[in-house]
Amino acid sequence: MNFGSIFVSEALGTGLLILLGAGVVANVVLTKSKGFDGGWLLINFGWGLGVFAGVYAAYKTGAHLNPAVTVGIAFSGAHDYATGIPITFGNTIAYLLGQMIGAFLGACAAYLAYKRHFDAETDAGKKLAVFSTGPEIRSYGWNLVTEILATFVLVFVVLAFGHTPTGLGPAAVALLVVGIGASLGGPTGYAINPARDLGPRIAHAVLPMTSTARKPERVPVTVGAGEGTAEREEAEAPQRKNSDWSYAWVPVVGPLIGGALAGLIAHLVL
Amino acid sequence: MNFGSIFVSEALGTGLLILLGAGVVANVVLTKSKGFDGGWLLINFGWGLGVFAGVYAAYKTGAHLNPAVTVGIAFSGAHDYATGIPITFGNTIAYLLGQMIGAFLGACAAYLAYKRHFDAETDAGKKLAVFSTGPEIRSYGWNLVTEILATFVLVFVVLAFGHTPTGLGPAAVALLVVGIGASLGGPTGYAINPARDLGPRIAHAVLPMTSTARKPERVPVTVGAGEGTAEREEAEAPQRKNSDWSYAWVPVVGPLIGGALAGLIAHLVL
Amino acid sequence: MNFGSIFVSEALGTGLLILLGAGVVANVVLTKSKGFDGGWLLINFGWGLGVFAGVYAAYKTGAHLNPAVTVGIAFSGAHDYATGIPITFGNTIAYLLGQMIGAFLGACAAYLAYKRHFDAETDAGKKLAVFSTGPEIRSYGWNLVTEILATFVLVFVVLAFGHTPTGLGPAAVALLVVGIGASLGGPTGYAINPARDLGPRIAHAVLPMTSTARKPERVPVTVGAGEGTAEREEAEAPQRKNSDWSYAWVPVVGPLIGGALAGLIAHLVL
Amino acid sequence: MNFGSIFVSEALGTGLLILLGAGVVANVVLTKSKGFDGGWLLINFGWGLGVFAGVYAAYKTGAHLNPAVTVGIAFSGAHDYATGIPITFGNTIAYLLGQMIGAFLGACAAYLAYKRHFDAETDAGKKLAVFSTGPEIRSYGWNLVTEILATFVLVFVVLAFGHTPTGLGPAAVALLVVGIGASLGGPTGYAINPARDLGPRIAHAVLPMTSTARKPERVPVTVGAGEGTAEREEAEAPQRKNSDWSYAWVPVVGPLIGGALAGLIAHLVL
Repeated sequence: MNFGSIFVSEALGTGLLILLGAGVVANVVLTKSKGFDGGWLLINFGWGLGVFAGVYAAYKTGAHLNPAVTVGIAFSGAHDYATGIPITFGNTIAYLLGQMIGAFLGACAAYLAYKRHFDAETDAGKKLAVFSTGPEIRSYGWNLVTEILATFVLVFVVLAFGHTPTGLGPAAVALLVVGIGASLGGPTGYAINPARDLGPRIAHAVLPMTSTARKPERVPVTVGAGEGTAEREEAEAPQRKNSDWSYAWVPVVGPLIGGALAGLIAHLVL
Repeated sequence: MNFGSIFVSEALGTGLLILLGAGVVANVVLTKSKGFDGGWLLINFGWGLGVFAGVYAAYKTGAHLNPAVTVGIAFSGAHDYATGIPITFGNTIAYLLGQMIGAFLGACAAYLAYKRHFDAETDAGKKLAVFSTGPEIRSYGWNLVTEILATFVLVFVVLAFGHTPTGLGPAAVALLVVGIGASLGGPTGYAINPARDLGPRIAHAVLPMTSTARKPERVPVTVGAGEGTAEREEAEAPQRKNSDWSYAWVPVVGPLIGGALAGLIAHLVL
Repeated sequence: MNFGSIFVSEALGTGLLILLGAGVVANVVLTKSKGFDGGWLLINFGWGLGVFAGVYAAYKTGAHLNPAVTVGIAFSGAHDYATGIPITFGNTIAYLLGQMIGAFLGACAAYLAYKRHFDAETDAGKKLAVFSTGPEIRSYGWNLVTEILATFVLVFVVLAFGHTPTGLGPAAVALLVVGIGASLGGPTGYAINPARDLGPRIAHAVLPMTSTARKPERVPVTVGAGEGTAEREEAEAPQRKNSDWSYAWVPVVGPLIGGALAGLIAHLVL
Repeated sequence: MNFGSIFVSEALGTGLLILLGAGVVANVVLTKSKGFDGGWLLINFGWGLGVFAGVYAAYKTGAHLNPAVTVGIAFSGAHDYATGIPITFGNTIAYLLGQMIGAFLGACAAYLAYKRHFDAETDAGKKLAVFSTGPEIRSYGWNLVTEILATFVLVFVVLAFGHTPTGLGPAAVALLVVGIGASLGGPTGYAINPARDLGPRIAHAVLPMTSTARKPERVPVTVGAGEGTAEREEAEAPQRKNSDWSYAWVPVVGPLIGGALAGLIAHLVL
């Protein structure tokens, strides 16, 4: 299979993954969306089934959709990334490039699907959350530990799939991703995939996301001991678009370490 | 397989799909229902498992249940709609007619299942929501974009199913529909199927849905600083039944475009 | 297979079904339970996976677990209830008796699992809800319609399973039951199984459910405009145990009609 | 298969199970976690999919991951724990030791994944809840009954799996655990596995969980009729770490009894 075919397959699969993954976050966090405040399990299912869809679309290349998986396979002692695709430098680049470009384009598609809801949203933090992960308690070291552990689980179990025959096909990795999100997504939002985080972060940086720089307006207030007016300040002040680049290395480096460790240990024990 | 058999199979499958799909919305939005306010994921599972049931019932015709799927297959370069059913004008009509009539009848069945809850409901908007989709932020162009994207995902992945052997059977498309709803249903309510939206909308228009034209009544009020009476005005004024026909073209045209695009691209890359 | 083996298999499977099904309702409605107020989807999964467990346990007899399924198969033109079990009067009695006794015993087991939570519960309606279904809007005719429709979906799709090869096994009917509950459970609580409702209702009638006949006590009240005491009357007055026998025929007759109709129509179209 | 290989396989699988299982509880109960207050069904899915991941990792040893399963197989009349692993005293020890050590290490890993959230949590009860189960209504006898019943369902149905061919593979036991949690987890939190409870309880006892012994501090209060300060007393007083050892025998003894009973009855009826 040539460079271009690998690239297209992985880009298509990763694009679908991010379209559905970023989509479910948009559905849950952006105001006026039908799934607003729909809960963590809804987010877990959205991402898990995003993987499900992406895996079908990228079946030709084994559907890595994730540099941590590509790296994990390379470290596991395998000779091929998928049937007919040997582990070479060129093929590795084709995988990684497809994943990054696909993730970027998928995020753009999610933006289009929720265009009016982005326009209507005044909280810049929620807009970024649709695209990229961020920790609840910022601590680069411990955030890295969480991403390493979660990605280790992902890649190790994916490498174990081959040893246990089931008819689940792509549903197996979908369920696994639902589980990792449910269990280990609490601290950092489970990037567990460098492309999933970095591609959409670049999309967030370049997309024309109008910061809602409306003037603060005086609105009538009826709650409390009498009517009156108060200045609505929250979310109305001009907000510079902030793609939180200082955190961006964590969901890239953590998953790569976790994937490599999973490959090494799978090589030893599976 | 003759016209009549195709029609019956698709009508039965689409009917079950809409009975369960409209049913779950009724369960979540109509007052006094046990699943009232049960959340977006509940709605996603109801629709996904409605597809699940419908696919089993329509197995003989490949269970399209959706004009966008029929169109997508036609555009994908296939020669048959299902084993033994070549792509001809007559068969296409049999599929589309079965889907539309089935969707209409399924909506009527859901109405009967929730008859007393429709009678008790005073919010006409909720009644319509059981039958047909509507956007949270009305913008025909962007609503169309959302429906195109979501239907593209549905039809493209369904066309990819054939290339990845799994034992999931009808559960694969059910999971896919859960995922699309979770991720891309936020702006428009994911029709992703012209029959799913138009058939029930016609049912809404013709069913004897009594607009609750009761006179405003004075009710005792006990909340607040003393007892008294207040006029309950909300939802009590006569409401003309409004099936929102101005929006009805979006969930028909969008899915057809998305399905055709998916067929074309699947033809190129799968 | 002899009468006794059929009876034991169906009793065991139906018992597990009711243990888990009644259990999830207890978890969601009884105070102090960890799943209290856990939502409708949780209830749907509990019942669906109760079917899942029960089907494995009763695999020898085809795991009907439900008189409506037994009746539906009889009406579908089949010659056997399961491999090696011809449709005879004696075998039919063995199935029905096993289902009823199993449902009764499963309800008793659920009572034991939640014994202390039943003791602590002061709302008699919640206790009954663990055992048997009841409508949100009482209307025997329309409640019957709802049960007929929901059971039709169950039995018709179960009869269709045989025509679509999948590797889901018992998970298929589990998912189907999740879907029926999500979509058609709103008005009546989806008995869709005479044994599921009647067996536990008998258990409710005979189990030593102490009505909390404590004397009304005066409790300090701190909410509102000053401290004081008020008589807590709700749920403290002696409550006669009421198993709502006037409704009990609906979840027996409705499912039997629905199952028979499904068998007849499956005979025609599948 | 030798002692060491059995030990490593079961330790790895049980470790993954507890990492994800303890993880989901941390996600739902620890403050500032993204899944905070995510509901009982989220917890059920986290544990169920923890089993899913663990079973893949321990496929070589049949993935017991649970002394109750090991005991149940021994009582079921089987000759082997898994293909090529006869039931001997030495192999039994290898299984049990692997499960206990794995559970301990998995709990430590979950602690690391949520390190900062443990640091930030002031409620010692929530910290313990991440590691071990505890009853909502303490009653050693009835709590034992609940654990016996729930574990009986687990082990009996697992033993029945072998008789019903499906392609679900590890997903079957995952779904079963979701169902048991949904339905029978209400009173005690469903240990249903001695290693799952005891291993993490030991981890809780030895991990450096800093009791938040900060001095009560005076904090500014802005809610109410004026600014001021108030002493924050709740959760600020020094808390001795309490691993609730008085309850620890229940989730060990109950599951062992339930597993043995399931093995005996499976021997008779399956």
